[in-house]
Amino acid sequence: MAGQGESGDRAAAGGGRMSRRSGAMRDEVIAFKRERILEEAAAAFYEHGYQGTTLEAVATRLGVTKPFIYYHFRNKAEILSEICRRGITEAVAALDAAQAGEGTPDQRLAAAIEAITRTVLEQQAYTAIYFREEKNYPADDAVELNRRRKAFDHKLSALLEEGVAAGVFEIEDVRLTALAIGGMISWAFTWYNPRGRLSTAEICRRMAGLVLRMVRRPE
Amino acid sequence: MAGQGESGDRAAAGGGRMSRRSGAMRDEVIAFKRERILEEAAAAFYEHGYQGTTLEAVATRLGVTKPFIYYHFRNKAEILSEICRRGITEAVAALDAAQAGEGTPDQRLAAAIEAITRTVLEQQAYTAIYFREEKNYPADDAVELNRRRKAFDHKLSALLEEGVAAGVFEIEDVRLTALAIGGMISWAFTWYNPRGRLSTAEICRRMAGLVLRMVRRPE
Repeated sequence: MAGQGESGDRAAAGGGRMSRRSGAMRDEVIAFKRERILEEAAAAFYEHGYQGTTLEAVATRLGVTKPFIYYHFRNKAEILSEICRRGITEAVAALDAAQAGEGTPDQRLAAAIEAITRTVLEQQAYTAIYFREEKNYPADDAVELNRRRKAFDHKLSALLEEGVAAGVFEIEDVRLTALAIGGMISWAFTWYNPRGRLSTAEICRRMAGLVLRMVRRPE
Repeated sequence: MAGQGESGDRAAAGGGRMSRRSGAMRDEVIAFKRERILEEAAAAFYEHGYQGTTLEAVATRLGVTKPFIYYHFRNKAEILSEICRRGITEAVAALDAAQAGEGTPDQRLAAAIEAITRTVLEQQAYTAIYFREEKNYPADDAVELNRRRKAFDHKLSALLEEGVAAGVFEIEDVRLTALAIGGMISWAFTWYNPRGRLSTAEICRRMAGLVLRMVRRPE
């Protein structure tokens, strides 16, 4: 069955006639398949929980057989790890971009908050699974995911500290404030409704506004 | 085994010699046993997840047998419901007290935030389970628990509206701000360390301070 998936990839890539381009296409198709498996697995874990979802059920959602999934992922735990890695990796990247970016500390903080909020909203199922399924992380991944979460808190604290040093922010307790901000944003996975009152962009803008009010030095 | 538990209660209550007092004692002992079951179940669910915990394991933690637990709870799901009901019920009660209380809107909001934060910190395992195990709620309880969560958001919004009407708060979007505040506080279950840098009282005070900065009209 895995072999069949393989020849399917090659057919899609044009039967190997143009070897460089077909190699690229083959990688793209594999990446596309992995992505679709992750998407459907995330939707299933989100609805029924990780333990309540079988790979059989994920295969059915995709209209494929279980061996097709096993060709792309070692097991259900590897799929969970990959899903959980997404959100936190993007959130940390948003903070790195803010750190390296131009503008005043409040402009950079606002940009970071908007980017992180967007990640949480657009990857609502991934974010929910990341937090809900903590007890199901494989042990090795738990350590790594925990390390990334700590990195997130440290980088956010560093961004706040910078604003304090520049005299733009006034913060009694930088570490607690970073945790409070992280909670405000992460939590959005619990209440966000894609068909709700506000657009994604508007929610991101308002969240950044709330954070700035919390940290800006009063004029 | 359930019968043995019963005679144990009666013995503790003095063998029924003083019927009114022994009746009260019997109820107290039953309540105490239920409470201990909930505590150990919460600790186990917190460490291993709901689906990863058997009632057998909870019984072992308590040094009792499984029928002892079945005498007090219908099944594992009923224990989960009871655990989940705790935190949200206390949080809603804190908002009711703030609504009914005396003082300016900011004093009442600060008191509510401190009380809710205290609930989250003191019932860290209960709060974590409430949020993580949403997909395992029995269907009837899911409806009720969801209703209470909505009540929480509404009551917090009402308290914010009151402050806006009194000219003490200035808030662009009351509903989003209530959700943001709810997230800031609830999230504390993910990072709170009872042996950490700050006392519970200090965390509660600082959280209230952050919330007030977010909503108070600038002077």
